[in-house]
Amino acid sequence: MADSKMLKEIHEQPEVMGRILEEGWSEILSAAQELRSDGFRSVMIAARGTSDNAALYSKYLFEVLLGVPTALASPSAFTLYETQMNLDNVLVIGISQSGESKDVLETVRRSGELGAHTLTITNDDSSSMAEAADRHFFLRAGEEESVAATKTYTASLLVLYLLAAALKGDETPGDEAYRLPDLARKTLEAEWKGAERYRYAQHLVTTSRGYNLSTAQEAALKLMETNYVVAQAFSAADLQHGPMAMIGQDFPVVTIVPSGKAGAGMRELVETLDERGAETVMVSEDEELVRKAPAGFQIPPSCPEELSPLLNMLPLQVFAHDLAMLKQLDPDSPRGLSKVTETW
Amino acid sequence: MADSKMLKEIHEQPEVMGRILEEGWSEILSAAQELRSDGFRSVMIAARGTSDNAALYSKYLFEVLLGVPTALASPSAFTLYETQMNLDNVLVIGISQSGESKDVLETVRRSGELGAHTLTITNDDSSSMAEAADRHFFLRAGEEESVAATKTYTASLLVLYLLAAALKGDETPGDEAYRLPDLARKTLEAEWKGAERYRYAQHLVTTSRGYNLSTAQEAALKLMETNYVVAQAFSAADLQHGPMAMIGQDFPVVTIVPSGKAGAGMRELVETLDERGAETVMVSEDEELVRKAPAGFQIPPSCPEELSPLLNMLPLQVFAHDLAMLKQLDPDSPRGLSKVTETW
Repeated sequence: MADSKMLKEIHEQPEVMGRILEEGWSEILSAAQELRSDGFRSVMIAARGTSDNAALYSKYLFEVLLGVPTALASPSAFTLYETQMNLDNVLVIGISQSGESKDVLETVRRSGELGAHTLTITNDDSSSMAEAADRHFFLRAGEEESVAATKTYTASLLVLYLLAAALKGDETPGDEAYRLPDLARKTLEAEWKGAERYRYAQHLVTTSRGYNLSTAQEAALKLMETNYVVAQAFSAADLQHGPMAMIGQDFPVVTIVPSGKAGAGMRELVETLDERGAETVMVSEDEELVRKAPAGFQIPPSCPEELSPLLNMLPLQVFAHDLAMLKQLDPDSPRGLSKVTETW
Repeated sequence: MADSKMLKEIHEQPEVMGRILEEGWSEILSAAQELRSDGFRSVMIAARGTSDNAALYSKYLFEVLLGVPTALASPSAFTLYETQMNLDNVLVIGISQSGESKDVLETVRRSGELGAHTLTITNDDSSSMAEAADRHFFLRAGEEESVAATKTYTASLLVLYLLAAALKGDETPGDEAYRLPDLARKTLEAEWKGAERYRYAQHLVTTSRGYNLSTAQEAALKLMETNYVVAQAFSAADLQHGPMAMIGQDFPVVTIVPSGKAGAGMRELVETLDERGAETVMVSEDEELVRKAPAGFQIPPSCPEELSPLLNMLPLQVFAHDLAMLKQLDPDSPRGLSKVTETW
């Protein structure tokens, strides 16, 4: 089989990150300065699918780095139930790769009418969503042809991180952000224990905590889209409230163990999973954890936790891709999906 | 096998609903009057597991009926990342059956220090959470012995509904709420097409939209807890953003099709699922939809959509219970779970 578009786009990510840092920062900085002087008391983010996982990442950024309560929007409150929500001084952010996601578009439009400051993030500067908001950030990821989104996901994470940095008052993206393209390149060049082992796995659980809960969610979505396996994401805490009952001997669990504050709790969870006989697919900076797992992906060290979702997702995109290729599935065109999903 | 505690508690629900309506309303009304005069600009709800599904239900209530932006809290923002969130004029609600969920407790405590109005909802009047907040609502469900929560779930839904009604300015719970105990009794007495067909199903998807997304989530959780099957909930819209790819011939999908505004979209989804050859477990007021499905649960008509999650969950609790009994699993004591889950 020829190289897939998905694999090509996975490998474009370091370059896209570089482009956003170089070309995107100034517009983010000036928008952030205006938003700070306008003032906003809370954030609400509307998105679906992969973009919704980026939204989840930014909920932690905004709440932890900025101290601003942040909600993920329920678009149906706007599109079905015609909410008359009071959105004065709320910043509503809509995220969509295509910029044509109907219910996200409608949520942004209605939010503006209900008093919100609105901002959209898309990969198409002339999309309906680009024009529907007070402000628009362009992802600069280049056209994404694979239905399974990869580069627009990490591009969204980076744009959201830069927005949080600028809202926090940073004058530049910072050294840690500037190191990302290089770290992403190293991550993608690393040799990994492969996907073969999971050829016949019919279901998987993915788990992490905090900033990287987004990584677990996006990994589950990529596996569902490209491999038609049942893949379900849980925060480490939620996993222990019920779903742990289904994890028995040999159950495959994709576990993202970041450095930083979520690390300790995740290590405890790994022990519990080991005791139950689960099979861990490990994504971590920690060499020993990676070596001990049946399948493991080593992440280059020294990325701060709040940026680590931009690296931790990369091997999991490759994992989903490789597993699809092993099964002779076409990762670029999953059955029953199209690039622009119209839901209402 | 003797009757399980879970089944006993499932059948106590009509009585619990009646008790809340009779004994609970006055404290909810007076708390709501105080909260309205204090004023709050948004709501944040902290909960885990089953209580988090009740929280999701109330997000729709507060946003649609009250027009107040509502977020589900990320407890780790408080417990791990020490957020300094500005919570002036935010109402923070913590929900926990036991009242001892550590991270939810800590989220409520810290929220109070950060300026929030705090309210807890528990089934134990002397629990730590009952004492940690400005106000406490007692679920009045009687002791819940089964690890798989049932009556405390619907009790939480009803208390949250009554809170929304009182905040909206209602002077009484209203006729529709007063009819619930009777409708719940009728729902539980109905004859259903049984669970046998799913004896060997290893994974299921559950889906609905709007108010009943909570029903889909709670059904998935009950199936995971008591049957150790992989069960995953999606909103109808999210299902179409990627996960639909995994739904093929014979894939079992528990589908809740309410009357009201979410009904039309759910009917369209049922057609799509039929085209893909999925096997629908149908929960609906619509007799024809129920009759056509391989397994179906008929809900008595005339319950308004915003109260329907209190009825729609009942047959799904029984479904999870019956399936566990068929497999000779003990639904009262799922492996690896305990009644009070301590996560941090």
